[in-house]
Amino acid sequence: MIQEDKLGQAVSILKELDIDAWQTVGRETSMNNDPVIPLIAGMDFTATVGLIVTKTGEIIAVVGHNDAEGAKQRGIFGQIVSYDTSFESALGPVLDKLSPSRIALNYSDSDPAADGLSHGLFVQLDAFFKNRHFPGQIVSAAAIVWRLRGRKTPREIELIENAIEITQRIYAEAAGFIRSGTSEKGIFDFFQNAARSHGVVPSWQPSQCPGVMVGPRSVPGHNGPTDIVAEKGFVMDIDFGVMADGYCSDLQRIYYVLDDGETEACSEVREAYQTLQEAIRRAAAFIRPGVSGIEVDAVARDYVTSRGYPAWNYALGHQVGTFAHDGGTILAPRWERYRPELVESPVEAGNVFTLEPGIATSCGYVGQEDMVLVTASGGRLLSTPQEEIFLVR
Amino acid sequence: MIQEDKLGQAVSILKELDIDAWQTVGRETSMNNDPVIPLIAGMDFTATVGLIVTKTGEIIAVVGHNDAEGAKQRGIFGQIVSYDTSFESALGPVLDKLSPSRIALNYSDSDPAADGLSHGLFVQLDAFFKNRHFPGQIVSAAAIVWRLRGRKTPREIELIENAIEITQRIYAEAAGFIRSGTSEKGIFDFFQNAARSHGVVPSWQPSQCPGVMVGPRSVPGHNGPTDIVAEKGFVMDIDFGVMADGYCSDLQRIYYVLDDGETEACSEVREAYQTLQEAIRRAAAFIRPGVSGIEVDAVARDYVTSRGYPAWNYALGHQVGTFAHDGGTILAPRWERYRPELVESPVEAGNVFTLEPGIATSCGYVGQEDMVLVTASGGRLLSTPQEEIFLVR
Repeated sequence: MIQEDKLGQAVSILKELDIDAWQTVGRETSMNNDPVIPLIAGMDFTATVGLIVTKTGEIIAVVGHNDAEGAKQRGIFGQIVSYDTSFESALGPVLDKLSPSRIALNYSDSDPAADGLSHGLFVQLDAFFKNRHFPGQIVSAAAIVWRLRGRKTPREIELIENAIEITQRIYAEAAGFIRSGTSEKGIFDFFQNAARSHGVVPSWQPSQCPGVMVGPRSVPGHNGPTDIVAEKGFVMDIDFGVMADGYCSDLQRIYYVLDDGETEACSEVREAYQTLQEAIRRAAAFIRPGVSGIEVDAVARDYVTSRGYPAWNYALGHQVGTFAHDGGTILAPRWERYRPELVESPVEAGNVFTLEPGIATSCGYVGQEDMVLVTASGGRLLSTPQEEIFLVR
Repeated sequence: MIQEDKLGQAVSILKELDIDAWQTVGRETSMNNDPVIPLIAGMDFTATVGLIVTKTGEIIAVVGHNDAEGAKQRGIFGQIVSYDTSFESALGPVLDKLSPSRIALNYSDSDPAADGLSHGLFVQLDAFFKNRHFPGQIVSAAAIVWRLRGRKTPREIELIENAIEITQRIYAEAAGFIRSGTSEKGIFDFFQNAARSHGVVPSWQPSQCPGVMVGPRSVPGHNGPTDIVAEKGFVMDIDFGVMADGYCSDLQRIYYVLDDGETEACSEVREAYQTLQEAIRRAAAFIRPGVSGIEVDAVARDYVTSRGYPAWNYALGHQVGTFAHDGGTILAPRWERYRPELVESPVEAGNVFTLEPGIATSCGYVGQEDMVLVTASGGRLLSTPQEEIFLVR
């Protein structure tokens, strides 16, 4: 079970960082979820829950009595302490026994993936620690969560590869559907229906997945499809991913509506497409454990700008996992928008990133997005780069 | 559009509470969601977002440039301020202009529905307010969120009624499936498939919805189904709900496997069932605007205990809306587990509650759960109480 593997990884990470204990606290998690909970528990909790991992390998769940049987059925918690009315009274003795000198909680000013603890629960925990004269230090668990989410296990990589394969199949199917006159909304519906018929769901907010940009007047970004229709000489950029068995893909592919007499895309589009493919190749060849997100971004960005194109105004890539945007290290320049610790931190083996440079052309936006796994010996593309522009009439 | 109605309600609630402004702040909301965002925006945001409502009726969205077009398409925000790199630099001038003397943020130590602001974002906002020498007062938005979620609009009630109708249909269908020898897992799969074929999803965590308790050895609570099979003389309690168009139902119904020679359920089960039905009837007749959750709970609880049964060890009811557990006032005793402000606060017109007492019998758990709408003139059951125990062979 993935959660069991991740809990095992968490223990190693605590040792590595020399943090005694890590506690994830949530309540009514189907409504107000800490993104760590699916990763290490794979179940929801109605009452306040504390999931504690220690660097000595203890895995303890403090749960309301209604959640106890569900937690037991998971078979991944070494100890389950259940309470009837007061979370604090159950947590107290557990913490007394562990007496950690440092305990990490899920808050971070830079990464939503590591910021699942709500402010109200933080205040409650803080009062609890103060009332008990807890002698330990409260620290952010961001460094734990980044490593834990980022270091994909072999089983996680398999699931991501499966999501990628389904996505690539849907892209190929769409080539038989899109034609001159097809609207953004029509393309959007095709992808949504295709996901359903493959038994999967969109990787991100369904009203914005896929992102569809048809021709030069479509607005890039995260928004819904419009009534703009494909015309001859238009390029269509689709940004799509699926979640299958809890793991996501995120890929971009392009389609081109041939103009009368054309047998291939216009040279402007072809050159942009080839430039992006080369940028992705170079970034995938460069990426390896220890390099920073800034360095990887620069490899692709410098290549694209050296060819005379303006740089795209977003990151080269983000991690992908149980979410399409999976948090942790980002492949991006040192921009104010991206927290320094997220672009400066070293890429690690097991990380899965998107590589998604783009170029605006007079026929529409040209984007390419592939996914790369970082191995000990370098980058390995998990997706198959788009071999040819999908040509439609 | 529901979000437009809810934003309109929010303005009235701010007036009522005399709070100048309410700001909901999130980021990467498909991963780390504030439960308020679907209610007032109905879209996800990748970059940090601030959704501001003022008591003078302004609705302002401060969004990253990639989210701007999506926000515009919603057509519900009076003003959209988009930024490229720094959320704070875009928010500053907006707040300067509004200069609220009280601004509410989504944190609460008692209610997860009103506690969507993460601790990391709170720290970031707090630093921002301090750096700008913001003269106003930061307050919890819990009182706003409770009223806003709790006061269902006519359109929201319609959607809840639709979810209830689908659920009741599935319960009736299940009577043709369940028989002696059917396992908890088999029943679970039937309900999950039925939801799919009705084009809806389970109301809560799919691995725990429906809750299935077959016979006396099954463990009550929020856990997955087991291999326990229905035997003659067993009662089966199913706790199920669906989400249709974003709104939920939550109902419990019972089935009974007739023993040889029986033509109705054993008297122990029948008496428990009738007692619960009468408890629900009494609570629904009693509930009205202004009474407290404690009072409503007591009506049902006192009736059940007056009949010689032990009281169930959970609340009589919770609110239902975009989540099966929708936050706010709870119908429950003054127990430590339930925050005083949630059980003492007055029931309001427009609230939708479950009424779900239960009794353990020697044949299995007997629960009944219906849903009641509070109107100005009293309670109106939205679900049709189970007319007869579903008898199966």
